[in-house]
Amino acid sequence: MPTSIYLDNSSTTRPSEQCIGKMVPFLSEYWGVPSQPHQMGQRLLPAMEEAYRSIYALLSADSKDNLVLTSSGTEAVNHVVQAVYFDVTRTTGKNHFVTASIDEAPAILAVARLEQMGCVGKMAAVTTGGFVTPQAIADVITPRTALVSLSWANGLTGVINPVSDIAKLCRERGILFHLDATHVLGKLYFDLAEVGADFITFNGDNLHGPKGSGVLWVRDGVRLSPLLLGGAQQAGYRAGDVNIPAMVGLGVACAEALESRDLMCTEVARLRDKLEAGVKAGFSDAVLFFNDQQRLPNCSTIGFPGISNELLLYSLDRQQLYCSMGGGNFPQLGLVLTASGVKDTLAHSALSFSLARTAYEEEIDRAIEIIVSTALRLRKLSEHITLT
Amino acid sequence: MPTSIYLDNSSTTRPSEQCIGKMVPFLSEYWGVPSQPHQMGQRLLPAMEEAYRSIYALLSADSKDNLVLTSSGTEAVNHVVQAVYFDVTRTTGKNHFVTASIDEAPAILAVARLEQMGCVGKMAAVTTGGFVTPQAIADVITPRTALVSLSWANGLTGVINPVSDIAKLCRERGILFHLDATHVLGKLYFDLAEVGADFITFNGDNLHGPKGSGVLWVRDGVRLSPLLLGGAQQAGYRAGDVNIPAMVGLGVACAEALESRDLMCTEVARLRDKLEAGVKAGFSDAVLFFNDQQRLPNCSTIGFPGISNELLLYSLDRQQLYCSMGGGNFPQLGLVLTASGVKDTLAHSALSFSLARTAYEEEIDRAIEIIVSTALRLRKLSEHITLT
Repeated sequence: MPTSIYLDNSSTTRPSEQCIGKMVPFLSEYWGVPSQPHQMGQRLLPAMEEAYRSIYALLSADSKDNLVLTSSGTEAVNHVVQAVYFDVTRTTGKNHFVTASIDEAPAILAVARLEQMGCVGKMAAVTTGGFVTPQAIADVITPRTALVSLSWANGLTGVINPVSDIAKLCRERGILFHLDATHVLGKLYFDLAEVGADFITFNGDNLHGPKGSGVLWVRDGVRLSPLLLGGAQQAGYRAGDVNIPAMVGLGVACAEALESRDLMCTEVARLRDKLEAGVKAGFSDAVLFFNDQQRLPNCSTIGFPGISNELLLYSLDRQQLYCSMGGGNFPQLGLVLTASGVKDTLAHSALSFSLARTAYEEEIDRAIEIIVSTALRLRKLSEHITLT
Repeated sequence: MPTSIYLDNSSTTRPSEQCIGKMVPFLSEYWGVPSQPHQMGQRLLPAMEEAYRSIYALLSADSKDNLVLTSSGTEAVNHVVQAVYFDVTRTTGKNHFVTASIDEAPAILAVARLEQMGCVGKMAAVTTGGFVTPQAIADVITPRTALVSLSWANGLTGVINPVSDIAKLCRERGILFHLDATHVLGKLYFDLAEVGADFITFNGDNLHGPKGSGVLWVRDGVRLSPLLLGGAQQAGYRAGDVNIPAMVGLGVACAEALESRDLMCTEVARLRDKLEAGVKAGFSDAVLFFNDQQRLPNCSTIGFPGISNELLLYSLDRQQLYCSMGGGNFPQLGLVLTASGVKDTLAHSALSFSLARTAYEEEIDRAIEIIVSTALRLRKLSEHITLT
């Protein structure tokens, strides 16, 4: 019986065994909450400290910086946008918020909400390479811009934005800069001090961590009003008791992401390149998007001219090969590609494949076989439907 | 070796074995997210449906009503307050928000945030019985009141508010009514249709459910803007993929809370009464607060005149008996008692004990012994300190 092939790691990842193993005792035995003034609370503190250390290390963050543990990356992004509204817009009148058309829905929609409250949302343009240039940001910022919010890399195409240059521009203009780092952690080498962001957010379940975990990092000295009010937990940044099982699981996931970064950037990148070459060799019309760009080592976006990506995705699904048309409930991939100048029909023939750090040779060989044979079969069928 | 005695179930509860048992496969095997359009997402749907059924059943909710799964009760309360601001205040100008001085921090502080945005927060007075009367609400509402937000019962004192009468008043005046039901679920018999609330929220880890779980129920026909924006998950009420392990665990917890309600209202109430009688018999100055009120079957607030409650709590802690001075980082119990007319020194001698549904005779006998002997010893010490 064939096992499944999971190439949708930009949507969610399998929690690692070590992550689950570390969480379970905090479900069954150490189930207190840290705000309890007795031993049930106090005994949680060493595990919390260990988890914090791992998260700071993955981010290469300074110990003076602040971390907020959230319930998801989505919450963290919403928190940043709303906090900037409270801390900057309402005190200075700077009411412009910049995102990019290839950004993810939380930033775009959180800004759209602010437009109901007198703010202005602006979207930076995207190059045909699928990224946002500093010039594209310079074109939309004004003296009234409060925040620029970008994904560090796009999880579907893998294309990496030139964030240090954009951060520099923001700093020069007195604009706060938020980076969603969900897709780059454990896949990119960086030094946070050199990046120069003010806020960094990420989602834990994209790192082989637990569902219901996210992080919001705040540079030392940057204000952050709470999104959830109601208690002094997390130094007042987020009310509600910290979800300790999720936190300790996330700590493990962060440590493992750091440890496996070399593997991800070498072996997994090689397997991704092999996947692309194999598909192209078997289905010569395949379009390998963005493979000449700076991109993540594990992502590939491939166009299959003449085939609807929905049909292809469902056909692959029936063979237990799982991939993506875009994160969540919406086929976002088509939007990202058209924003990058790809023609509509080609954009809607594309699928995104994202490998796990556990990817291995035979799995990728089998994936190539399944993808090629399915694409050939569906194109034949499409031709037939078109001709008759 | 003596085992610990946990009488702090209003702060958090031990996740039930069945709850954990149901969660683990969703950490290790069924780790997809429901928005994935392939089998990894689809295979989650039956478990989600089962969990929804259990949550609706515990609330006795109508299937037409809406449920939002949140990361905590705190998030759910913040969601209600902010949504009413967007959906009512900004469309009608009704900008008064009513809470009570004995309410919990999320509602009070979420309203305080709105005061920075042109709203007015008002607090209803509390009777010496520790509850809020319909008259106290009538005294503070105006034609501009948008929302009344109350805890159904106070988790420290156990005192139950007359919520149906307050709901009726709100309905007559066209005011939305939010009830935090965290402390009453599984401990009180009710029919939601008769209660007449518009929003009900609760926190999952107070029900022997998982950390990081909460619920916001919305009556059919009532508007609710999202707090977290960014995706079509949960019918647009809350962006971000549903935390499936937490959801299935919460479903189990809700089913068990319903099953054990009879036990809670009979046997656990008997043990609570035994605890109070035993402490009073051994330490005759003990003050049993609110024991003639409508209150939850598992809560007891006891004053120990002449003893600081912090000192008593820490002394009990060293004997592995865990209780509470108030939820979270703040000794809220003293505030609740003084708001109910109790003198300051007596209020700050009081501790709150809350029994689990698993409470048993020997445990309570031993608790009485420990509490009485500790209180006697500490009072002797206090007298000595005062006299010399």
